[in-house]
Amino acid sequence: MNRDTLIVDLYELTMAAGYFEQDYNPLVTFELFIRDLPATRNFLLAAGLEQAVDYLRNLQFSDDQIRYLRELDNFKNISSSFFDYLRDFKFTGNVYALPEGTIVFSNEPIIQIEAPLIEAQIVETFLLSTINFQTMVASKAARVMHAATLDSVQRGVMEFGSRRAHGPQASVLAARAAFLAGFMGTSNVEAGYRFGIPVLGTTAHSWTMAFKSEKEAFERYQNIFGTDATFLIDTYDTVQGVKNAMDVAENFKAVRIDSGDLGEEAKKIRAILDKSGYEQVKIILSSDLNEYKIEKLIRSGTPVDFFGVGTQVAVSLDAPTLQGVYKMVEIEHNGSQLYRAKFSSNKITLPARKQIWRFKDDQGRIHHDVLAFKDEDLSEVAESLLTTYMLSGQIVKKPDSVHEVRKQVQLNLSELPDTLRHLEEKSAYPIQISEKLQQLSTFVKNELAEV
Amino acid sequence: MNRDTLIVDLYELTMAAGYFEQDYNPLVTFELFIRDLPATRNFLLAAGLEQAVDYLRNLQFSDDQIRYLRELDNFKNISSSFFDYLRDFKFTGNVYALPEGTIVFSNEPIIQIEAPLIEAQIVETFLLSTINFQTMVASKAARVMHAATLDSVQRGVMEFGSRRAHGPQASVLAARAAFLAGFMGTSNVEAGYRFGIPVLGTTAHSWTMAFKSEKEAFERYQNIFGTDATFLIDTYDTVQGVKNAMDVAENFKAVRIDSGDLGEEAKKIRAILDKSGYEQVKIILSSDLNEYKIEKLIRSGTPVDFFGVGTQVAVSLDAPTLQGVYKMVEIEHNGSQLYRAKFSSNKITLPARKQIWRFKDDQGRIHHDVLAFKDEDLSEVAESLLTTYMLSGQIVKKPDSVHEVRKQVQLNLSELPDTLRHLEEKSAYPIQISEKLQQLSTFVKNELAEV
Repeated sequence: MNRDTLIVDLYELTMAAGYFEQDYNPLVTFELFIRDLPATRNFLLAAGLEQAVDYLRNLQFSDDQIRYLRELDNFKNISSSFFDYLRDFKFTGNVYALPEGTIVFSNEPIIQIEAPLIEAQIVETFLLSTINFQTMVASKAARVMHAATLDSVQRGVMEFGSRRAHGPQASVLAARAAFLAGFMGTSNVEAGYRFGIPVLGTTAHSWTMAFKSEKEAFERYQNIFGTDATFLIDTYDTVQGVKNAMDVAENFKAVRIDSGDLGEEAKKIRAILDKSGYEQVKIILSSDLNEYKIEKLIRSGTPVDFFGVGTQVAVSLDAPTLQGVYKMVEIEHNGSQLYRAKFSSNKITLPARKQIWRFKDDQGRIHHDVLAFKDEDLSEVAESLLTTYMLSGQIVKKPDSVHEVRKQVQLNLSELPDTLRHLEEKSAYPIQISEKLQQLSTFVKNELAEV
Repeated sequence: MNRDTLIVDLYELTMAAGYFEQDYNPLVTFELFIRDLPATRNFLLAAGLEQAVDYLRNLQFSDDQIRYLRELDNFKNISSSFFDYLRDFKFTGNVYALPEGTIVFSNEPIIQIEAPLIEAQIVETFLLSTINFQTMVASKAARVMHAATLDSVQRGVMEFGSRRAHGPQASVLAARAAFLAGFMGTSNVEAGYRFGIPVLGTTAHSWTMAFKSEKEAFERYQNIFGTDATFLIDTYDTVQGVKNAMDVAENFKAVRIDSGDLGEEAKKIRAILDKSGYEQVKIILSSDLNEYKIEKLIRSGTPVDFFGVGTQVAVSLDAPTLQGVYKMVEIEHNGSQLYRAKFSSNKITLPARKQIWRFKDDQGRIHHDVLAFKDEDLSEVAESLLTTYMLSGQIVKKPDSVHEVRKQVQLNLSELPDTLRHLEEKSAYPIQISEKLQQLSTFVKNELAEV
């Protein structure tokens, strides 16, 4: 049984039943895009495609799931042939999408679904929740990485947010999205098991508290983990903590500081370590860190080698939601295409299947995008971003692994203009609408006014 | 294979290995509690226990999971007997917890785990993520319910947040937590399938956009769903929308408005409906609603029967994380109990196994709590809140179903003093520390100072 199948808003299924009962299942195109960027984001990193494609490829309804649906009052007017249809249901559509890790802005399609209306409708909820979440976390993580390497020192950042992620399963996908954006790894073991992401960790305060004294705790830890040991030195007092660590070990990997004024603590502890001949010992800082705090630490010259970042990236704390929507842009009607858009207040959308064309400047920095009708060809001057992943329900291009994506992200981020990379100044990337798309929009608006 | 087992921070497992290698596995007590309430919360509703107990009861490592762990560099110093131990691993401890739906405040244990150190350590991450998330959503949802029924009219609120929840699986648990807190149901079908929660829905704009005109769309919908039909009337223009609905249907259930000035729109549409003899037709409002917006709508006399609330409850948008922590409070040492606490800056904890005693006033409103050492008995004057759910790894009390919890929540919320219920004024509920617990804390602090 596919445990994801029923993760769907009821109305997708009642509308599907409604279309089915009318024998109305034309080809449509839906586009998934983020309406407006959060106030604290100048760009997003598209993420979640691997899970989206997995879902589309494996989507089916079990007998038990169908039995449950049939018994719902909401389907009381629906004939049994709809449930037969669900029993044989497969996604047979085309999927165009941004490769994961692509830099993306508001109103640009991240995924485009061309499929029979019923199929396109049913997959809405899962796609939105998958893409919204991972794109949000990856985008936050890219900012954290930028802060951690502001001074061009390549410091590693570890994802530690599982305990505050929105439930256990969210923690795994948060780890994936953070890694993709450049984190060195995660504490989440399932993310390692499932995606091959490096798993990392130190010790908790409970290790120290499990023994009579901190020194005994460190000694026992050292006995087992040897020179790989990282000591968490702030359970009682960091200065005494680092002395205890040096007392029990002639050589060890790192100390972690998880409370107090991290900048001050790090300077104090670095000085003690260096004075005592422990120059090789690294310093790991954690404790509710985000890009703003990390930027401050780096700018004030804090001696730090690694950061542990948890809650703030796993829930994208300053922007814990993205306004991702999934809108119908075209529908076949008696053999011709109708273009679709919404003009209700504050929720205006652009009609028609689109392609995103990205223009770069002489230095290879991204300069502006043009949102064009899909048939327009700007390939001589720009790069098209939407890529074909599925045709007729079959995968024609496998989404890149999270490792490949992570490499590509480094390149993509290097093409960002400095204005977009700035952590605090809001900067809008220019997105132009092609003349043809503009005309289509006006045409649809006029057409609707006549209805 | 248990897919939850490896949703664990790596350090839980490396520490477990470390304890195992030392042959050190004393009985310990850990407590899970929320450090400080978010600025916008006067109380929390404990939630997630059913999933926590399921996890503890079913926790086991598959061969493949163990193989993965063995190959990690982090375990290179660990003997193979540790992996044999994991192969036979079962949770054998005791679990004391607040029944789901209990009103809880900062520093009060939501779950207390008494178990051999290794077991207690391994379960930390999953328990935190489960309890943090569902408690957060349930607490937000209770505020939304309070706002929706401010004027004592029992309006229903539907959970519509799946698309913005933090990934597909989070959406199911968000729906569960919102229902438990008083929501009437959810659009999330899996939450219905798995927990028997009522599933609800209307239609999307895409239904309207799928047909040549709104009127045709409404007509086709009405053909199938009859008097149960709810029409979404804001795709193009709400006044024309409601007229189209009335044109195609002599009777229908409701209209939904999902954009614009909801208060103004509802008044306008209600007037049109009433004037046209459609007094029985309900109005559903949605569009980024939260408790503050709902309060304003109710106070300004908006004619509304149901609310749909999505993002704001599914991610608890004004407080998208809770500071839940899991701390060792006692450990057995050579046959006697050692009390444990942390005194590092800003992260001070109280030692010892606790019980929460709740005092009520003459009107049955909750008045204050006393955090006491577990052996203290205040049962003559107060009610104890922590309840025994598992002993020696066996369930001795099954957590209540989400339906039972929801009923109990209504009662619990009715016992809140008005100050705590207020949506905008911060109010601190009095929590006293018993003299004995106070003494234990001082004792532990002095003891640590000597180390």
